[in-house]
Amino acid sequence: MTDPIIRFATIDDCQSIYDLILELAIYEKAEDQVKISVEDLKKDGFGDKPLFECIVAEISGKVIGFALFFTNYSTWKGPCLYLEDFAVFPEYRGKGVGKAIFNKLLDLAKKRKVGRFAWQVLDWNTSAIEFYNGYKADLDEEWVNCRINFK
Amino acid sequence: MTDPIIRFATIDDCQSIYDLILELAIYEKAEDQVKISVEDLKKDGFGDKPLFECIVAEISGKVIGFALFFTNYSTWKGPCLYLEDFAVFPEYRGKGVGKAIFNKLLDLAKKRKVGRFAWQVLDWNTSAIEFYNGYKADLDEEWVNCRINFK
Repeated sequence: MTDPIIRFATIDDCQSIYDLILELAIYEKAEDQVKISVEDLKKDGFGDKPLFECIVAEISGKVIGFALFFTNYSTWKGPCLYLEDFAVFPEYRGKGVGKAIFNKLLDLAKKRKVGRFAWQVLDWNTSAIEFYNGYKADLDEEWVNCRINFK
Repeated sequence: MTDPIIRFATIDDCQSIYDLILELAIYEKAEDQVKISVEDLKKDGFGDKPLFECIVAEISGKVIGFALFFTNYSTWKGPCLYLEDFAVFPEYRGKGVGKAIFNKLLDLAKKRKVGRFAWQVLDWNTSAIEFYNGYKADLDEEWVNCRINFK
């Protein structure tokens, strides 16, 4: 496999990004939780006030992986980079694509001098946890997510 | 005690907000983690591109509680409201101040039609968990926080 191109997403990538989001949600047993559409991604990420940024991995013109992230704020660390979603299509896994995407994110976090680069992982997703352990990430089960869902 | 005024914070509230952040960090046994300053709060929250919003509770001209939040993005739910930090000075607790602040946030979340209102709680903070259970929040320990701290 040739090395993927890692680049910022454009509005034309939204269908592929949506497909990857859905693919990951199915893996996470949460397909029914996905309430957004391709049009929402176009509007929310590529309009006047983008609510997220996105990088994609591309091989031979096909988007095969993505990471969707944004700047959030910690009252302890100041501006931080938060990785909301990150996936590679199954047939392209185990070939370093995820690592290429993740390294790009780490570089961005360092360049922007944020206080923290953060994300979440499901406690049963051992392959993802192993991947993140390779980066010496601090995994912490002391904080519990609280949510009131409207959608 | 008279009812507190619940209002959006101004730049002049940043010292009080900082004091509340530090107070809460001490309670959470993480005082050494607080790397921001009052000046950072002024710059990050009240400049050209605010990274957060903040509401405060005020009694007789004194800020006694706060909630710091921002819009984040869920690839499942779209734009969401995220509550980053929320505290009331100890001597004013148990008097409905936290509830007044939290109700204001819930109202905001509904008015803005976000997909989710979310935050985190420490698993040993039983009084906070009890408070959130009163709102029928969904508490979920399946997702683990991952962090690479730069500060």
